[in-house]
Amino acid sequence: MKFQTSITDVKTNGTERVRGKELTELIENNTFTQTIFLILQGRLPRDKEEQMMNAIFTSIIDHGPATTSALTARISASANNPMHCALAAGILGFGERHGVALEATMHFFYENVETSDVSLLLKSMKEQKKYAPGFGHKVFEEKDPRAEVLLKKAEELGFFGMHCKFAKSVHTEINKISSKKLPLNVDGAIGAILCDMGFDSRLGRGIFVIGRIPGLVAQVYEEMVQDSGIRRLDVDDIEYIP
Amino acid sequence: MKFQTSITDVKTNGTERVRGKELTELIENNTFTQTIFLILQGRLPRDKEEQMMNAIFTSIIDHGPATTSALTARISASANNPMHCALAAGILGFGERHGVALEATMHFFYENVETSDVSLLLKSMKEQKKYAPGFGHKVFEEKDPRAEVLLKKAEELGFFGMHCKFAKSVHTEINKISSKKLPLNVDGAIGAILCDMGFDSRLGRGIFVIGRIPGLVAQVYEEMVQDSGIRRLDVDDIEYIP
Amino acid sequence: MKFQTSITDVKTNGTERVRGKELTELIENNTFTQTIFLILQGRLPRDKEEQMMNAIFTSIIDHGPATTSALTARISASANNPMHCALAAGILGFGERHGVALEATMHFFYENVETSDVSLLLKSMKEQKKYAPGFGHKVFEEKDPRAEVLLKKAEELGFFGMHCKFAKSVHTEINKISSKKLPLNVDGAIGAILCDMGFDSRLGRGIFVIGRIPGLVAQVYEEMVQDSGIRRLDVDDIEYIP
Amino acid sequence: MKFQTSITDVKTNGTERVRGKELTELIENNTFTQTIFLILQGRLPRDKEEQMMNAIFTSIIDHGPATTSALTARISASANNPMHCALAAGILGFGERHGVALEATMHFFYENVETSDVSLLLKSMKEQKKYAPGFGHKVFEEKDPRAEVLLKKAEELGFFGMHCKFAKSVHTEINKISSKKLPLNVDGAIGAILCDMGFDSRLGRGIFVIGRIPGLVAQVYEEMVQDSGIRRLDVDDIEYIP
Repeated sequence: MKFQTSITDVKTNGTERVRGKELTELIENNTFTQTIFLILQGRLPRDKEEQMMNAIFTSIIDHGPATTSALTARISASANNPMHCALAAGILGFGERHGVALEATMHFFYENVETSDVSLLLKSMKEQKKYAPGFGHKVFEEKDPRAEVLLKKAEELGFFGMHCKFAKSVHTEINKISSKKLPLNVDGAIGAILCDMGFDSRLGRGIFVIGRIPGLVAQVYEEMVQDSGIRRLDVDDIEYIP
Repeated sequence: MKFQTSITDVKTNGTERVRGKELTELIENNTFTQTIFLILQGRLPRDKEEQMMNAIFTSIIDHGPATTSALTARISASANNPMHCALAAGILGFGERHGVALEATMHFFYENVETSDVSLLLKSMKEQKKYAPGFGHKVFEEKDPRAEVLLKKAEELGFFGMHCKFAKSVHTEINKISSKKLPLNVDGAIGAILCDMGFDSRLGRGIFVIGRIPGLVAQVYEEMVQDSGIRRLDVDDIEYIP
Repeated sequence: MKFQTSITDVKTNGTERVRGKELTELIENNTFTQTIFLILQGRLPRDKEEQMMNAIFTSIIDHGPATTSALTARISASANNPMHCALAAGILGFGERHGVALEATMHFFYENVETSDVSLLLKSMKEQKKYAPGFGHKVFEEKDPRAEVLLKKAEELGFFGMHCKFAKSVHTEINKISSKKLPLNVDGAIGAILCDMGFDSRLGRGIFVIGRIPGLVAQVYEEMVQDSGIRRLDVDDIEYIP
Repeated sequence: MKFQTSITDVKTNGTERVRGKELTELIENNTFTQTIFLILQGRLPRDKEEQMMNAIFTSIIDHGPATTSALTARISASANNPMHCALAAGILGFGERHGVALEATMHFFYENVETSDVSLLLKSMKEQKKYAPGFGHKVFEEKDPRAEVLLKKAEELGFFGMHCKFAKSVHTEINKISSKKLPLNVDGAIGAILCDMGFDSRLGRGIFVIGRIPGLVAQVYEEMVQDSGIRRLDVDDIEYIP
């Protein structure tokens, strides 16, 4: 089993270079966000790129115990598993309907950004019962405040490019044909910005996991500290259907 | 199944506060490292705390494809699994012998930092065939350069407290009785600094996972991009013993 | 990375022997339970061993959706993950407080079966606030019916040996000093029987996983078929404590 | 979070029925394979169904340490993780290229079994660069012996129905147009038989996991017993490409 890699070069004398940079110098001089950008993109970020990534990761960090990933993490921890095993359970709580949406969103934007007629695209999708990923929210109707603050930041920092513009025009057009009001949601905003920053859509769900893992650590740690015993459904929560 | 939580308050109107701070304001104003510190410690870090955490996370970010976590992640990805499932496999490659050591190290420092006679402690441990976690390295004999740069930074930033001093004195004494030269390794240095910063040892392996997950994302992404088919052991790597 | 193995010999001509037996002949002639026993113990079971293992695996097969493993599996599936990833999440719902208890139970029986004074052992454990694994049940006070039927079967088949007898005497003595009535539970019964069959305690939780995985497959499949969307806690199930 | 279930009814008095049958009676009277069939299909199997399932599960049980699932399981175990966590890592070593193929195979057979012109179907697939799942093997060219013995058994037991016949005719036609000799492999044979037994294709990968988990338990246990330290790639196995 042979591996070729361009990420990290661990020399036999024990020293280590990440994407060509001495690890000790990175520790000395660089922030975590800079190093994350470096390892994903192969170069250190410019200031504005770092600021944008800080905003994106921060927006993802946690969403309370009700999400599937927080639940699988905390339930696993309640059975008295080590932190890292509970975190693995948490990551397996992501899925096409949670977190992973970022990837679909980026894919949709990259595929369709050059469409000349957004209205036609959306109508044709509707006919095929396909929905545009990145739009809609359980509570918000007009605007998702997390999406708004991210897009404002993107504008300030110069990342409001063709994909963000496309997302905005999808937002306008989709609300002409949708029976329900659909805001551009936070997945849609992050997806559009990551496209305008040049990230490969296959990194979308990886970026989501990086941003959310500190939240999962906090959830699992809280479960450990509370130590309130193994989680089980209440009897009333189960209906047996013969 | 009822949950009590002090981490994130997602209001029914859709707005969200993390440890009492509006998420939109965190996105607007704070770095990722600040928000990680906030969610783990319940308050935003001071400048020097942020700098120290940046150095710690950066020191952990990746260690090449040879580690157990990178291997389980890449092998899972090679079977054509989604990114997040391969990352879960990667996290299950951590264990008492990889990554998780940080927790044992912190525990050892907290338990023994007030020992009056370090030499006696180590001799008694040796008799019980217990080894001090955080010391020793495959290649380095005198100094682990990552540990050195972290400790230097801790000194500059004011986190070289009683636990770091204790780690240094363990280093001195352990080399008087060990047959092999044992440097203070990177786990030992991070562990001592996290103790001097006041982190609970139960957060040790969580901090390790936060720091390493970007490296695992990069490893899985590289495996996806290379797309060189399913990984298997070579026939020569297996010896059948009837 | 070299592996030595005594389990399965896959020849370069493509044929395969499991524990020395041609796989094609096993397919032709043997039951699944026989082959499981073969791969774990290195030899095919005698008839009575096979019957005992059938009873043990059957007793483990499922315990409804309320258990932590069924919950993590179903919640992961509800986020639209592939079956095998949801099963991995399910397995991470096992833990020291669910399923894994079998190992602790076997360990306890092996360690203490030769104790001359069971009463003294239990009193001394009680003083150290250690509890005997394999005893106690949420609902049953006198007898756990699954444990009873397994022990009856063990008697019929000749596996009611010194560990089962020891378990019975622990049951008698523990109820003299416990404030709550503690039956020998199903983990205790299976653990004692597996000891009398000669299984290594380190296989305990593996045997549990083998027995329960069909139940997890059924749970995940049911979640897929119901397809009722992503699982989330209800708002009322979360209490935010500032 | 409310669950409806038709699988297992755990009564508040502690007794338990699986698919309507008392668990204690199943323990008393039924084999593991019968109970697996019951929990997946909702009814106990007829004799011939049980025999067929025994052959299928046995054929899957292990394939040595070289497979991705055995590797991720053993590597995780080598980092000193609990058995169940290493098994979860093993399951995450399954994927579209390993184990999960069964599902694709069943789907292909169900979708196309009524095709009037198999030759045309395969040519059209070839033009679209789609390949028929369930055909081809690294070593075998004419026949995969595991597939042969399973199909022979299916014939004897009366499960060689329209899907097995379809698989055979695909085998004939595909070898007229393929540049490489492609046998019907073991995934193809199991898939066809499971279709003829009436299993939902969404259970395909679950059945694979049930059959393989005892092999993974044996692999992890062997790794624990050998206790040869943490697995790492050799330096020579990594090529750094700047």
